[in-house]
Amino acid sequence: MKKLLILSVLLISACATFALDLTSPNRQLAMKFWLNEKGEPMYSLNYKQKEVIKPSKMGFELKGTPNLLDGFTLKNSAVSTFDETWKPVWGEVSQIRNHYNQLLVELEQPTEQRAIKIRFRLFDDGLGFRYEFDKQPRLAYFKIADERTQFALAGDHKIFWIPGDYDTNEYFYNTTHVSNVDASKADGSNIGTHGYFAKNAVQSPTIMKTADGLYITIFEAALYDYPAMNLLIDQQNLVMTSSLVPDAYGTKAYMQTPHITPWRTVTVSDKATEMLASKLTYNLNEPCKIEDTSFIKPQKFVGIWWGMHVPDHWTWNYADEPNIKLKDTDWKALKPNGRHGATNENVKKYIDFAAANGIQGVLVEGWNVGWEDWAGNWKEEVFDFVTPYPDFDVEMLNKYAHSKGVKLIMHHETSASVTNYERHIDKAIDFMKKYGYDAVKTGYVGWIIPRGEKHDGQSMVNHYQRVTEKMAANRIMLDQHEPVRPTGQGRTWPNLVACEAARGNEFNAWSAGNPPEHETILPFTRLKGGPMDYTPGVFELKMDYYRPGCEWRVHTTLVKQLALYVTMYSPLQMAADLIENYEKRMDAFQFIKDVAVDWDDSRYLEAEPGDYITVARKAKGQPNWFIGAITDENARVATINFGFLDPKTKYTATIYEDAANTHWKDNPMSYNIRKITVTSKTILKQKLAPGGGVAISVVKE
Amino acid sequence: MKKLLILSVLLISACATFALDLTSPNRQLAMKFWLNEKGEPMYSLNYKQKEVIKPSKMGFELKGTPNLLDGFTLKNSAVSTFDETWKPVWGEVSQIRNHYNQLLVELEQPTEQRAIKIRFRLFDDGLGFRYEFDKQPRLAYFKIADERTQFALAGDHKIFWIPGDYDTNEYFYNTTHVSNVDASKADGSNIGTHGYFAKNAVQSPTIMKTADGLYITIFEAALYDYPAMNLLIDQQNLVMTSSLVPDAYGTKAYMQTPHITPWRTVTVSDKATEMLASKLTYNLNEPCKIEDTSFIKPQKFVGIWWGMHVPDHWTWNYADEPNIKLKDTDWKALKPNGRHGATNENVKKYIDFAAANGIQGVLVEGWNVGWEDWAGNWKEEVFDFVTPYPDFDVEMLNKYAHSKGVKLIMHHETSASVTNYERHIDKAIDFMKKYGYDAVKTGYVGWIIPRGEKHDGQSMVNHYQRVTEKMAANRIMLDQHEPVRPTGQGRTWPNLVACEAARGNEFNAWSAGNPPEHETILPFTRLKGGPMDYTPGVFELKMDYYRPGCEWRVHTTLVKQLALYVTMYSPLQMAADLIENYEKRMDAFQFIKDVAVDWDDSRYLEAEPGDYITVARKAKGQPNWFIGAITDENARVATINFGFLDPKTKYTATIYEDAANTHWKDNPMSYNIRKITVTSKTILKQKLAPGGGVAISVVKE
Repeated sequence: MKKLLILSVLLISACATFALDLTSPNRQLAMKFWLNEKGEPMYSLNYKQKEVIKPSKMGFELKGTPNLLDGFTLKNSAVSTFDETWKPVWGEVSQIRNHYNQLLVELEQPTEQRAIKIRFRLFDDGLGFRYEFDKQPRLAYFKIADERTQFALAGDHKIFWIPGDYDTNEYFYNTTHVSNVDASKADGSNIGTHGYFAKNAVQSPTIMKTADGLYITIFEAALYDYPAMNLLIDQQNLVMTSSLVPDAYGTKAYMQTPHITPWRTVTVSDKATEMLASKLTYNLNEPCKIEDTSFIKPQKFVGIWWGMHVPDHWTWNYADEPNIKLKDTDWKALKPNGRHGATNENVKKYIDFAAANGIQGVLVEGWNVGWEDWAGNWKEEVFDFVTPYPDFDVEMLNKYAHSKGVKLIMHHETSASVTNYERHIDKAIDFMKKYGYDAVKTGYVGWIIPRGEKHDGQSMVNHYQRVTEKMAANRIMLDQHEPVRPTGQGRTWPNLVACEAARGNEFNAWSAGNPPEHETILPFTRLKGGPMDYTPGVFELKMDYYRPGCEWRVHTTLVKQLALYVTMYSPLQMAADLIENYEKRMDAFQFIKDVAVDWDDSRYLEAEPGDYITVARKAKGQPNWFIGAITDENARVATINFGFLDPKTKYTATIYEDAANTHWKDNPMSYNIRKITVTSKTILKQKLAPGGGVAISVVKE
Repeated sequence: MKKLLILSVLLISACATFALDLTSPNRQLAMKFWLNEKGEPMYSLNYKQKEVIKPSKMGFELKGTPNLLDGFTLKNSAVSTFDETWKPVWGEVSQIRNHYNQLLVELEQPTEQRAIKIRFRLFDDGLGFRYEFDKQPRLAYFKIADERTQFALAGDHKIFWIPGDYDTNEYFYNTTHVSNVDASKADGSNIGTHGYFAKNAVQSPTIMKTADGLYITIFEAALYDYPAMNLLIDQQNLVMTSSLVPDAYGTKAYMQTPHITPWRTVTVSDKATEMLASKLTYNLNEPCKIEDTSFIKPQKFVGIWWGMHVPDHWTWNYADEPNIKLKDTDWKALKPNGRHGATNENVKKYIDFAAANGIQGVLVEGWNVGWEDWAGNWKEEVFDFVTPYPDFDVEMLNKYAHSKGVKLIMHHETSASVTNYERHIDKAIDFMKKYGYDAVKTGYVGWIIPRGEKHDGQSMVNHYQRVTEKMAANRIMLDQHEPVRPTGQGRTWPNLVACEAARGNEFNAWSAGNPPEHETILPFTRLKGGPMDYTPGVFELKMDYYRPGCEWRVHTTLVKQLALYVTMYSPLQMAADLIENYEKRMDAFQFIKDVAVDWDDSRYLEAEPGDYITVARKAKGQPNWFIGAITDENARVATINFGFLDPKTKYTATIYEDAANTHWKDNPMSYNIRKITVTSKTILKQKLAPGGGVAISVVKE
């Protein structure tokens, strides 16, 4: 599949003696690489003749050794092309084309006798490039003070951003122009570990829209053994520069050659729907490294979880004790607070409900001792991950679940005490294997221990990966909460079925929540790195149901909660609400029962970041389709062209729609269900309420 | 054994409304506790009417909450006495009397509704006190910015000190007056991780001598879950204040009540020999927590070790590769450098030698892969602790050793990558159990990972203890190198048979080394906390033996190396030199063969810190005695009064003495061996060469 392309070498100035050009397979994207008069590596990127990235520098500031910023000469370059189609273990589509032209440049720094490589891959949907450091005598160990990769913008674009932060990504999005970004004005309230590191810094991924209608996403792919990348903005010159997450000493990365960086990516299109469909992040990750993936089962789950988030209902903790020591406590002697969620009785009810409704998993949080004072104390020995509370019979409950064809999902909240988790993880896995768990949700709430490390720094990136690989070796699926945002590792390690790594639905239960536009942005940003465990499916949307007068609420209609199962792709989807709330509305719950979690195909029909998304997906191995459309705070009419259907077949579409007077604020829970027959000729004009949506199941007649 | 003493309450000022007095059992020490006009806790200490500690403040500066420094009122106080005699698992003596009067004061801070306790224990040889924080609503979790315990000195004493440093204690001692301490002038060369944190700070323990002949040691006992204490000196007012080792955030300690601090100790005597004999540190530790201590066997050992320290001999590493990755390396494919020490052939020779000479253990360093680039790179994944080099057959060698009644001693160098060690330790212990190891030497060379933590900080203190307990649970003896200095834990956890935690003999092999006085100071300071693995017994003292022209050398005579087996108490004693160096001088080696490592009794006959030590010890369960005397750079005549012998018995004393012209510098290796008959009436005037000593075995005729 590889062939050499012609390499064009141009003289672009007296000093910069060459430029290497590369175009994407369809020739719509064109990039250039050169060394400027100081020997600084430079690149630029165009899309359909429009400037996307203006001339931008590349390189590294090092600690204790001369920088890798300038003084480079070109030693070699090679161009190649690659075209393959691969099948993901799970995904939005059953096969993905990975087609790019590649330029590999080898640069030398003669004064230091050091060499680096930069590998560019130009796809039809964007550019990826990474730095590669081969093993060499003068570059064995080195420390990165910071990476200085520039992304020089061609204008003061509209940008959807969250603030640059080393420890959390659980913000809602701000929409400004690049020159107006001010991280100090982002709302970090209700995030335990928030803290912007510079007013002019944002996290990647971020999506921008240019004045002439281009969409541009800057992100990274395959983040391993390296810190996450934030973007520091020179607001005068509209240049973004990589800014990595530091350790306790302010060092960004500890490198030993051979070593490669993650890919830096620029995805670009003039169609928002193409941005959603792009698989560039996955394509830049390595093929699957798990030999037997049969244990990885896309699934839906319910759980002892939402009840701890809504006001005055359940608790994770068994007793009300503000100060408890794991080792010294006689848990049976504690006085139960009477609101513990993870009781035998509750769990059995959830198992029964799951079994009755074809739900495969039951997550149980708060099953294990230590929750009394788990958060906010920067405590190291919080949990041991193997000791259940007195009212949780781990053996009985797993047997009961298995007898009904259901599996419990393990929960390992680490309280961000990573040293403690790593000391217990092997025994915790033995415990899981003993009782038959095959999936675990991990959590990292709080400031990291080892103190001085950050959620998104190199050390923690290595931790998350270590856990992923350990779970894979034990045939366990993993759902990480509060980790660094994923960067496409799900291709290589598909047991990482989902992450949180963004502001989830839970914020709606106990804070100002997520604005109605939130779910129309995440698929353009956070979800480009991997599936999100957003926990949709909340039916009781107003928290005054639980606590009279409470103003917290979910900022969507009930129908939009259904639509999220389609618009927010994940192979692991929670039906988050309390089962008694479902039992009151089993007609609406039917959509959650029916909707698939793994897909043969996905068609993004309409999209605009911050405004709306309409997508149709074909269930894996079945003729049925599911459609989700969502809108922001504005009502709209979604246009659903069923042209994707098999032209020879008639289908019954069951439409779960906002009622005529539905509104996310005043009347979110009123809905209507109707059935129509559709064919590939059908074009449906579907009204979405403010903050609303539509969910449609399309079943072959 | 407990009885109440009369508590005297005095009015000492209008504001300070009370003072509580306590005297030692023999009434030579007297202390006072009171609250001053600001409600600050105050104490003072006298010895035979002389001021030892002038009025000194006590308390804590906290982070984020009001301090625990002042505003206290006295809630309660209680005086008691305690007298018991306990038997250590190993030691200088077979039984230890623990006799003290105790004052427990309970203080309240009414404005904050918080309470603390201070527990004073006054022994005949000194004072110990600690802070105790009971569980209470307003003091659950708190962070210590620093401990503010003062030790106000009564004069500008002579002081033996090493600089305050968070990561190393491997300095030689400086001798100045307190007002002249300048840590910036201490020699830290050849210590990888040195760095003084303030010019006017010293480490504890430190010993001082007053103008009127009192010896005073300030130290701590039972350091658990808390950072080590340095002493910051107000040189104008001659007040020392505790200064704890911080974490990455500058926080000193993370506390959760109930919590106690280590004991702060002031040992005092007008006799230097009593300072050496004091067991105050051990008495302030808890009784043994290991039920079956039968696996703990005081012993001597040889090893594949000194050969890596002397010039141009062996290496730890198998190949010469400056950049190697543990996971990716095919160790069998590496080109051996031909100087690897831990080969089957060498180890078998050491096993043979040990077996032939009644030596129980053979330490082998450099047996496991990863040494090629282990140090200086702040590398995390250095060792896995279970993979031998291709030329080390772990199964064969252990079987061979066991067949000869010898045990190999495991070596776990962590390269200070504690995260990595903790991830591997369980498997490393399984590996040890599989092959029959029952002792391990650990090492912590380099800057700590997690980066931001310090060798002597709370997090590392917890790590060392975790390893000690894990080894105890697996019936493994432990010898720690480069840890925080011990504080008497050997009473509670006697599997911790030795530590380095000071500047050992090894410095003599590759640096300016240890001045001749070095070994006359350590027993007054470092050894008060526990045995040291000093590695005596070097016979080839000048490094030009290995590398012509090399000026490095051991700064003692050969005989002094023998005497160290008696003067430097340890239940684990290495015969450090290469066996070929012993084979040339088997007459002198006879003392090493004969000398005991566990004792029924010890008599300090003469001592002056920095000058000389003479001690006689009775071998455990035997009638034989061993005597060691050492001097500094000055020749002297040791007076050895054999009055400690059984008056009814005659003994043959074999005297290993410096020859007439012996001098540590010019002629260190000449010695003489003679035998005399001694009785309890004998008084021997024994000449010690400059930098020399004498070693005597006294065997019942």
